[in-house]
Amino acid sequence: MTTTESDVLPNGLTIEQARQESARAYELDRKHVFHSWAAQATLKPMVISAAQGSQVWDGEGTRYLDFSSQLIYTNIGHQHPKVVAAIQEQAAKLCTVAPQFVNDARSEAARLIASHTPGDLDHVFFTNGGADAVEHAVRMARLHTGRYKVLARYRSYHGGTQTAINLTGDPRRWPNDTATAGVTHFFGPFLYRSQFHATTEEEECQRALEHLEQTIAFEGPETIAAIILESIPGTAGIMVPPPGYLAGVRELCDRHGIVYIADEVMAGFGRSGKWFSVDHFDVTPDLMTFAKGVNSGYVPLGGVAISQPIYDTFAQRAYPGGLTYSGHPLATAAAVATITAMEDEGVVENAARIGEDVLGPGLRELAAKHPSVGEVRGLGVFWAVEMVSNPQTREPLAPYGGGSEGMNAFVAASKSNGLLSAVNYNRLHMVPPCTVADDEVREALGMLDSALDVADGYVS
Amino acid sequence: MTTTESDVLPNGLTIEQARQESARAYELDRKHVFHSWAAQATLKPMVISAAQGSQVWDGEGTRYLDFSSQLIYTNIGHQHPKVVAAIQEQAAKLCTVAPQFVNDARSEAARLIASHTPGDLDHVFFTNGGADAVEHAVRMARLHTGRYKVLARYRSYHGGTQTAINLTGDPRRWPNDTATAGVTHFFGPFLYRSQFHATTEEEECQRALEHLEQTIAFEGPETIAAIILESIPGTAGIMVPPPGYLAGVRELCDRHGIVYIADEVMAGFGRSGKWFSVDHFDVTPDLMTFAKGVNSGYVPLGGVAISQPIYDTFAQRAYPGGLTYSGHPLATAAAVATITAMEDEGVVENAARIGEDVLGPGLRELAAKHPSVGEVRGLGVFWAVEMVSNPQTREPLAPYGGGSEGMNAFVAASKSNGLLSAVNYNRLHMVPPCTVADDEVREALGMLDSALDVADGYVS
Repeated sequence: MTTTESDVLPNGLTIEQARQESARAYELDRKHVFHSWAAQATLKPMVISAAQGSQVWDGEGTRYLDFSSQLIYTNIGHQHPKVVAAIQEQAAKLCTVAPQFVNDARSEAARLIASHTPGDLDHVFFTNGGADAVEHAVRMARLHTGRYKVLARYRSYHGGTQTAINLTGDPRRWPNDTATAGVTHFFGPFLYRSQFHATTEEEECQRALEHLEQTIAFEGPETIAAIILESIPGTAGIMVPPPGYLAGVRELCDRHGIVYIADEVMAGFGRSGKWFSVDHFDVTPDLMTFAKGVNSGYVPLGGVAISQPIYDTFAQRAYPGGLTYSGHPLATAAAVATITAMEDEGVVENAARIGEDVLGPGLRELAAKHPSVGEVRGLGVFWAVEMVSNPQTREPLAPYGGGSEGMNAFVAASKSNGLLSAVNYNRLHMVPPCTVADDEVREALGMLDSALDVADGYVS
Repeated sequence: MTTTESDVLPNGLTIEQARQESARAYELDRKHVFHSWAAQATLKPMVISAAQGSQVWDGEGTRYLDFSSQLIYTNIGHQHPKVVAAIQEQAAKLCTVAPQFVNDARSEAARLIASHTPGDLDHVFFTNGGADAVEHAVRMARLHTGRYKVLARYRSYHGGTQTAINLTGDPRRWPNDTATAGVTHFFGPFLYRSQFHATTEEEECQRALEHLEQTIAFEGPETIAAIILESIPGTAGIMVPPPGYLAGVRELCDRHGIVYIADEVMAGFGRSGKWFSVDHFDVTPDLMTFAKGVNSGYVPLGGVAISQPIYDTFAQRAYPGGLTYSGHPLATAAAVATITAMEDEGVVENAARIGEDVLGPGLRELAAKHPSVGEVRGLGVFWAVEMVSNPQTREPLAPYGGGSEGMNAFVAASKSNGLLSAVNYNRLHMVPPCTVADDEVREALGMLDSALDVADGYVS
């Protein structure tokens, strides 16, 4: 990719200034910054020196299309002027207030969130991010039911703290899990790699529900506090559940007095083309965790939306949990501005349209053309490209939990074409901001197309 | 207290505007906001409509001295202009970047933090707050040692997520703890309520170390991954450890290959009149958690400072932990501005001087005058007033984990005098910003003095 024509980045830095700043930032990073999920001495991290909408610029001033939304959270795009202004105004007015007090930004954010959550999820407990939202949701469920065990699915991610990582059904749990965390994992529906030998979505749905019912029976319904499910599992593969599955989960929870926790940290706030991904399925969970898209990560924020019965449990009895920055004014002011802009500018509708008319059809075309693509699936701006080394056997291009030469070459090619995407084992996820423009999607599809030529070379 | 003379609050709102905004904020809060550590339906939370330095204004425009620093975190005071400006500038430049990339604000914050941490704690892993800092520090210690158990003291607070709350040695753990969390609690030094029947600080120190040594021996040194200690326990009572205690802990850890985690979330960044509270004792821990004062909570931020040997453990092997907002640009830009302002303006030195010359002597005078004060203790702007109903028996004015009429009356009196302080069972903590002015301290001491008259009425 070329630099911008004027050689000035959107943040006003010249390319030369950006280079100098980036060189210094890189040097200090390698000296002092400890990175997430990484072997520290092996890293050569990319510098991001500027960003705007669906684009970012690296330390050399090279432009990329950010179809990763960083970590699938800049739903409103980078540097939305209304959100930037709201942060600046709130900073001037009042940066911080402790959670025991009342603050207008926090109150208004809670009102706006509750106006979009389904059913009676009208109370909001704010956290700093998704992991602590999950921690608190599980605690509420345990105290509400008086039970300890939590069921979660394989192929899932729920966060990095102790409870959250133990719920997670991906290899990042392995070095952290404890037999005593009270978590049982089960298999969810995923037709392309069905555990249940199903051949249709209907069959997959029915068999996955039977499997969950059996798991509940064998674990003991009266020992189970909660079932937690990403409404559409994100990092684990963007497997849109078949129609009826989440309603079936809801019914099983109702039957056994189990709390249904919907994890909408990645799937919520427009990502799948609705405000929340449960909205595709007309289901109301008892607790719903969120983060990321709530304010596009402009300021750290997460939370739990709480149903009336669970609120009532803690009406007269103290909820034994909390955190210093719960309902932080700067973070909630950013949420107010983000949600308002999403409403005013039809951001969720844009995500739905992009998925239906541009990104979805475009990815399906590429899948038909390239043998290395086993399947594409998704909704809105939430799409997975499942890479295989053999389309017949569906052998993944990289093993579960690992990497491969073919996958590395493919990802490197897409990046050198100017495309940033999210990558997980044998999948590349196309997850741009909900505000992405049609021509940006077409440009990204072109970059992906030529990278898939590289991947095709690894198909046997 | 009266309103400001001009009837305009520091944020530019008139009293009437503030009242209207506050009424709306209060109504929405009660409808939609779920609060930390509280029975939701019983709350009548105070609105904070404006704040400046060591002062806040409620929803009626009434002024208070904020000697709580909210939740003991606004070390640089409210609305410091340089920190506000830095947040606004960073917002305009680049609000957010995911942790896998390099960002200049994050790099510079890591450099500045490392320039103040003791010894070889030169690498920084950023989190969103104190609880997740503790979660990650414990994970690092467990993976570094290959051991699971962690020792923590009674009378401590380490955060609200699963591992952190289980480490906590206060009643907030009780509804959350699990026998399987791998935590063992021991008693730390606290001469006023000695577990060890000691009569001098020297004796308390020696006996507390013997007790810890015995606990290690009985738990099995080779099963213990870490000992975690607030360098000065905060919410649990601001018990400054006797000279030699932390050095003794360091020596025990060295002898048994145990990781020493210093929790400086509340005690760090100037609170006790040094950059970190371990600095009073010339001790270098292996891991140090921080949050709060690092950027005075203007944007949610926490982290772990990491020693070279633990960094080396994760040099070639991936650290299996992370979070979306690790090293958030807005939060770290606020840290850069906060730390720089603290350096330039002698904020840490001011905290030390206030403790030595104004707040400490003033509190000791009040203790001598009022029989309801059992003891005052602290350093810098980190002081506890230990309230008793009987100075001879040292019977607390409220029981451990509970409240009492006397304590309620005392706290209500101090608040109606215009003083916000931190309260925990039978203690009132005087913990103003590190930037507090001498005359603000004198004003607060006057408010406390007349509230103590009320408390004296409950002394038998």
